[in-house]
Amino acid sequence: MTGPGLRLRQLGIDTQREFVIYMRRDCHVCRAEGFEALTRVEVALRDRRLIATLNVLDSDLLGAGEVSLSKSAWQSLQAQPGDPITVTHAPSLESLSAVRAKLYGHRLEAPALNAVIGDIAAGRYSDVHIATFLSACAGGRMDLQETIELTRAMVDAGERIDWGRVPIADKHCVGGLPGNRTTPIVVAIAAAAGLIVPKTSSRAITSPAGTADVMETLTRVDLDLPAMRSVVEREGGCLVWGGALSLSPADDILIRVERPLDLDSDAQLVASILSKKIAAGATHAVIDISVGATAKVRSDAAAHMLRGMLEQVAAAHGLQLKVVLTCGSQPVGRGVGPALEAHDVLAVLRGAATAPIDLRMRALLLAGELLEFCGHSIAGTGKSEAWRLLDSGLAWSKFQAICEAQGGLREPGVAPLREPVKSGRSGFVSDIDNRRLARLAKLAGAPGSPTAGIELHVKLGDHVQRGSALFTLHAESPGELAYAKQYLATHSVVVLADEATP
Amino acid sequence: MTGPGLRLRQLGIDTQREFVIYMRRDCHVCRAEGFEALTRVEVALRDRRLIATLNVLDSDLLGAGEVSLSKSAWQSLQAQPGDPITVTHAPSLESLSAVRAKLYGHRLEAPALNAVIGDIAAGRYSDVHIATFLSACAGGRMDLQETIELTRAMVDAGERIDWGRVPIADKHCVGGLPGNRTTPIVVAIAAAAGLIVPKTSSRAITSPAGTADVMETLTRVDLDLPAMRSVVEREGGCLVWGGALSLSPADDILIRVERPLDLDSDAQLVASILSKKIAAGATHAVIDISVGATAKVRSDAAAHMLRGMLEQVAAAHGLQLKVVLTCGSQPVGRGVGPALEAHDVLAVLRGAATAPIDLRMRALLLAGELLEFCGHSIAGTGKSEAWRLLDSGLAWSKFQAICEAQGGLREPGVAPLREPVKSGRSGFVSDIDNRRLARLAKLAGAPGSPTAGIELHVKLGDHVQRGSALFTLHAESPGELAYAKQYLATHSVVVLADEATP
Repeated sequence: MTGPGLRLRQLGIDTQREFVIYMRRDCHVCRAEGFEALTRVEVALRDRRLIATLNVLDSDLLGAGEVSLSKSAWQSLQAQPGDPITVTHAPSLESLSAVRAKLYGHRLEAPALNAVIGDIAAGRYSDVHIATFLSACAGGRMDLQETIELTRAMVDAGERIDWGRVPIADKHCVGGLPGNRTTPIVVAIAAAAGLIVPKTSSRAITSPAGTADVMETLTRVDLDLPAMRSVVEREGGCLVWGGALSLSPADDILIRVERPLDLDSDAQLVASILSKKIAAGATHAVIDISVGATAKVRSDAAAHMLRGMLEQVAAAHGLQLKVVLTCGSQPVGRGVGPALEAHDVLAVLRGAATAPIDLRMRALLLAGELLEFCGHSIAGTGKSEAWRLLDSGLAWSKFQAICEAQGGLREPGVAPLREPVKSGRSGFVSDIDNRRLARLAKLAGAPGSPTAGIELHVKLGDHVQRGSALFTLHAESPGELAYAKQYLATHSVVVLADEATP
Repeated sequence: MTGPGLRLRQLGIDTQREFVIYMRRDCHVCRAEGFEALTRVEVALRDRRLIATLNVLDSDLLGAGEVSLSKSAWQSLQAQPGDPITVTHAPSLESLSAVRAKLYGHRLEAPALNAVIGDIAAGRYSDVHIATFLSACAGGRMDLQETIELTRAMVDAGERIDWGRVPIADKHCVGGLPGNRTTPIVVAIAAAAGLIVPKTSSRAITSPAGTADVMETLTRVDLDLPAMRSVVEREGGCLVWGGALSLSPADDILIRVERPLDLDSDAQLVASILSKKIAAGATHAVIDISVGATAKVRSDAAAHMLRGMLEQVAAAHGLQLKVVLTCGSQPVGRGVGPALEAHDVLAVLRGAATAPIDLRMRALLLAGELLEFCGHSIAGTGKSEAWRLLDSGLAWSKFQAICEAQGGLREPGVAPLREPVKSGRSGFVSDIDNRRLARLAKLAGAPGSPTAGIELHVKLGDHVQRGSALFTLHAESPGELAYAKQYLATHSVVVLADEATP
């Protein structure tokens, strides 16, 4: 287009994944192109381009000829202040017609799913478009074949690792349970047994910690593909953040819209889990589904339906899958928050007397399943083999070696501010609210403040004396500690029953 | 919450209807409440409150303790710079569970629809939530009863005018045809006949002009309810912008998300049209559905289905409805753009020799139907009565009186820059692309620049000589004119066929 060029200025506005461009209403390009607020535009900087949503400025935040980008768009274009950019109308999104067709009751065929997922992975869908796609697929409207093709499209939209051998082991937990951090222990045991376990994990989205956040308190996790490969070649396993690897990149985008909508779609869940595993090159995966009233999967019936779908879609992609159902009625371990959970993991690996027994037992169960499933142990002996690898210190040695290969093992910190929360009465613990516990840990600062969170001192059924500590708040700043305490003034997290009715 | 208060600062960012709040990442409230980008928060200023989406700032655009709001949120709270505000977590939206249930195949009962529409009208839904609701209702998933209840919920969410008499006449066009501005003419004729026609119209959303934009070049249109009432009491009719009247306010919000998604939902369309009419107190309405390949309704079958639904839903609400199907194959009149269309309207009302005959005939047809339908004329005589009222100058006198009552009639301007676009060859006009024509008018500056747009010189079937003008571009600035011309370099708007094959 004609006229003087546009230059970038940084405003530092974080809109999460959605790309936003800020332009003055009187900007010549805005006027000439007929742009108005929420117009979808294509932004080009040298050979990089993306689609953004326009927010119009009626102020002098930007000078004449200046435009700005939201943080994610800025990063995606690798922009520098003063860079020249061009802004044009976004090309129309042909793949949206497939989304509309699905809403009108048509099936989504493979080419349509490839186009939709490709556009999403390339950042061409606004959040509103993504919500429409998720809605079109929700409510059981995706049949088995569509779910298989959706999974394939999600794998094809990103990188796919080929390890050149079999088996490649993986594990995943469908949970929503605070503190359920079995992954580092299972990977350490499996790698100690000689299995190849190239584990990638996510950061927290709405929870107080993701496995990548926990591992980041222990070692470096933002490895790129060559670095990850070299760790796995050397140690047989890794524990890295998946975000830097571009494995099923559409999944990360879909999840950020899906979560606030609270849309439970089995098809999306299955495609999300399996596309990550397949892209990471896994051939054998153990999936732990925690079932409980305040967990993600709330009934045995829902768990069995999800298991059936996982198994069939995995089979269609040549991925061997074993699903294990576990109890999801309360948190696992003691810590909730990155460093606090890392301490639990270390205690189990080191065989400390203080190690939380439930975390240990759950990790041994899953590791045993994985050892059998991958052919390392014969049926019925996996768990005892896992036990041996853990108690002999071999798993701990392997964990240390993996962390060293990733950049060095460090001891996670302890929050400077710790305050026990005491019981006002005696009784038996009859309920621990997983959601409120997660909320409380986040108020205390997790995961942004890595040592912040909750240290639980009780489990369901425990007898508690008046005045004894139910849990301890960990915080890095007095303000965060105060907010967590304020929340507790009006919300109970641990529920006690009378001593007479345990 | 504790800590020093937050103060408002103006940044002037226009995000359309979606309310956005801007806070520094290191803001104590952000940290303490665990807010992150895209968190939904409740913002309170004195006794006003709204729900907004958080955008987090990593820059010094805002000082410590300062927050900002998008323009629409700023206006909604009637904020002033420096005002103290409080920001808390938004209460959870109970009505979203009804949206999810609809996605999962359940029907929406009246209480659920009331809750959803009430939340939308109150601005509690983000655009992503609205997209999910629209998706849940699209694809023919709303049955007749649901559409009736949706319409009722939309009426109940806003003001409803009671005129205390019958009939109250109204008209509406489902079209998408550029220049199809029959409304001012039909209202003038009907009011001249003594009917009560309290007409409210919208501004353009994606088109080069809405009826309110056209009327604004002739008189004042942003009347409040008492002012509108007094115009109607005095002159029997009005031609005002509906946006200031709070009639079916959820409709305006839904439409802004619906349009970019291009979701054709008959239920939403019917509820949108009829809720506005019912809220405005209409008892008898004529609906003009233009059918054509590039119009909104593309086939007779679609038109008949829409007509059936409109009639049944209207009947359930006691609204008398007459649907007229008209030809939607090309633009109506000559002008496309606010002032250019106003000139066409004036020419027809004044009986000018240059008045576009198609606009005149269409307005007479619809006015005749309305006169018969409201019992003013007996069957078969409405059109000739409309003809008489128009050609006698009575309709023109009534139109002038209505405009005077609304604040004075003024002559619309003419754009300072006009450039004819000539045909490069001879031939017959075989096609006029409605969508490209609309786009071209917007590039030339419509509706923001009121005199900008397109003046068409040809109709389908016309014979054109090489070098004769097909249309004239009207613009208020050289830049806009240049952009329109640039578009024409790569897009043809008027298609010619060989003289041998007319």
